[in-house]
Amino acid sequence: MKIILDCFGGDNCPNSAIDGALLALEENKELEITLCGDESVIGAYLADKTYDKSRINILHASEVVTNEDLPTLAVRRKKQSSMMLGLQTLASGDYDGLVSSGNTGALLIGATIFVKLIDGVQRATLSPLLPTMVDGKATILVDGGANVDCKASMLKEFAIMGSAFMSSTGGEESPKVALLNNGAEEEKGNALTKEAYALLKDSNLNFVGNIEAREMFKGEVDVIVADGFAGNMSMKAAEGMGKTIFAMLKKYIMEGGLRAKLGYLLLKPSLKKIKALMSSDTVGGGVFLGIKKVVVKAHGASNDTAFKNAIVRAKEMVDADVCAKIANALGSDKQELNEVPAEE
Amino acid sequence: MKIILDCFGGDNCPNSAIDGALLALEENKELEITLCGDESVIGAYLADKTYDKSRINILHASEVVTNEDLPTLAVRRKKQSSMMLGLQTLASGDYDGLVSSGNTGALLIGATIFVKLIDGVQRATLSPLLPTMVDGKATILVDGGANVDCKASMLKEFAIMGSAFMSSTGGEESPKVALLNNGAEEEKGNALTKEAYALLKDSNLNFVGNIEAREMFKGEVDVIVADGFAGNMSMKAAEGMGKTIFAMLKKYIMEGGLRAKLGYLLLKPSLKKIKALMSSDTVGGGVFLGIKKVVVKAHGASNDTAFKNAIVRAKEMVDADVCAKIANALGSDKQELNEVPAEE
Repeated sequence: MKIILDCFGGDNCPNSAIDGALLALEENKELEITLCGDESVIGAYLADKTYDKSRINILHASEVVTNEDLPTLAVRRKKQSSMMLGLQTLASGDYDGLVSSGNTGALLIGATIFVKLIDGVQRATLSPLLPTMVDGKATILVDGGANVDCKASMLKEFAIMGSAFMSSTGGEESPKVALLNNGAEEEKGNALTKEAYALLKDSNLNFVGNIEAREMFKGEVDVIVADGFAGNMSMKAAEGMGKTIFAMLKKYIMEGGLRAKLGYLLLKPSLKKIKALMSSDTVGGGVFLGIKKVVVKAHGASNDTAFKNAIVRAKEMVDADVCAKIANALGSDKQELNEVPAEE
Repeated sequence: MKIILDCFGGDNCPNSAIDGALLALEENKELEITLCGDESVIGAYLADKTYDKSRINILHASEVVTNEDLPTLAVRRKKQSSMMLGLQTLASGDYDGLVSSGNTGALLIGATIFVKLIDGVQRATLSPLLPTMVDGKATILVDGGANVDCKASMLKEFAIMGSAFMSSTGGEESPKVALLNNGAEEEKGNALTKEAYALLKDSNLNFVGNIEAREMFKGEVDVIVADGFAGNMSMKAAEGMGKTIFAMLKKYIMEGGLRAKLGYLLLKPSLKKIKALMSSDTVGGGVFLGIKKVVVKAHGASNDTAFKNAIVRAKEMVDADVCAKIANALGSDKQELNEVPAEE
């Protein structure tokens, strides 16, 4: 299996990206990784590392897409950047997936333009896998911010793609799909969610109804459907609250004297576990659904472990043949729709 | 000052409501409170309490609006309920404000119909005062869930009302107003927020630009403007994350043996402070802006302290003459708009 890693554009690039690649290689013997970016910089960093040289390649790219670049311009004017060259190489060649921690918007537009949308897909989603209170269980959010203005038919498509992702990678044969809404009852919602509710209710998905944002992390559903604006608000507000709680705790510990400091030392392992779970991969990371090949967005602040995890996620998606499963699911949905009038 | 307290409809009603009223009376000598609800139940609970009888009245109401009641039906069919009778009494009589912990939608519609909107207001908001990391500082969210489908002109109106609220009660002469959005940069947003951004930028408000949901609790701005759907998502997602963190902490402490348990005991005061600040008044409570008289929604699970706080908030709003300030602010905005063409 061949994964391309965009080694530039994130906060800790290229070092953490390269270290993450080496960690992933150690864990997965069938992986081959192509490091994309300035070959002299990558080569110099690799010089004193020990690794299986037969499974690492370098694809030289002279430019870097930065977070300040406008996505539409980056796609047109930075074709030789590690991100855009990586995406073009993924599209044209014998590669299975790509991982990048760079500019999210540019990656989405680049993937859409160079790797292309699966037939029939209106728009690709950026879908984070939300951590939950249930050990080892993640919930996918479709959409987490790629599409800020949506029609109800797009929300249904997101649901189908999220469900196909979870059934192929998560082991749930019939993933529970819920609609993010401002109340649990069927009649709740704005114009968009009311229309989407009706579409989801009539679909073949395992639609379990509305979910309120306060229930997002309970791990009771597999797929949460939202327009990218609401999805983004929810995810970032949750992140903000997490950070606020830890910041306040730090403040109180500082002010709280010896007792609080000792308490903190004793509780530190538990607090660290929570902090790691609740922050690391939630925001700024996720998978793009609706693209013809696997593209994984590692969060911008990824360290080596986060890069390794993103590469492993890409590998799992390739193993599970997620893109084909999504194409099939959308195809059967369209077919079903076409059959209805014929039967009437 | 005369405040009406709807003593029924919340989780801990009527006992906590009545206890909250007695606490508020003790703290504020100029307060008179009218307890609205079943007079035999209220009378029986008051029987063995010590309080200033000259400042407590009972207004008998035979019915209760429940959380299961559809708001539009509750307004039409439960006119003799503690909530609706309270609102009608507020509108007609010599009263200054009303506090209720009951059905939020019913209270909003009841207030709009019986107490009426301030002239020129399109829709009233339900605005929670969000806790922040800055001691004693709250940020008002306009709107927190009353209006799930908004036009940009409504968002501007929400901003004017929120700003008038904060300048009259918060002491900030020129409150900082920010637009909740999916990025800090001006060009970010969905169709609604892009249009609202332009309106806010051209207004006389102290508009400081976009705010991301992750920054909501930093206390850097005074007013956060959002449509009720996005506002509701953000608030509830934050609540969910807070609950998740505390639930996980509890779990890890249980699993963590003596060390973690001891750590918890030592840190308990700090953790309790954070929990109280981050949960109590945030969700399910707030003030209605745009109504002709002061109406405060205490959250459904209010205990006696929460009821006391809601009554004190209503008193502060009356003292600050918030409703008149909002009417003035909207009036000058309209006048300014009308003057523009004349000047050109």
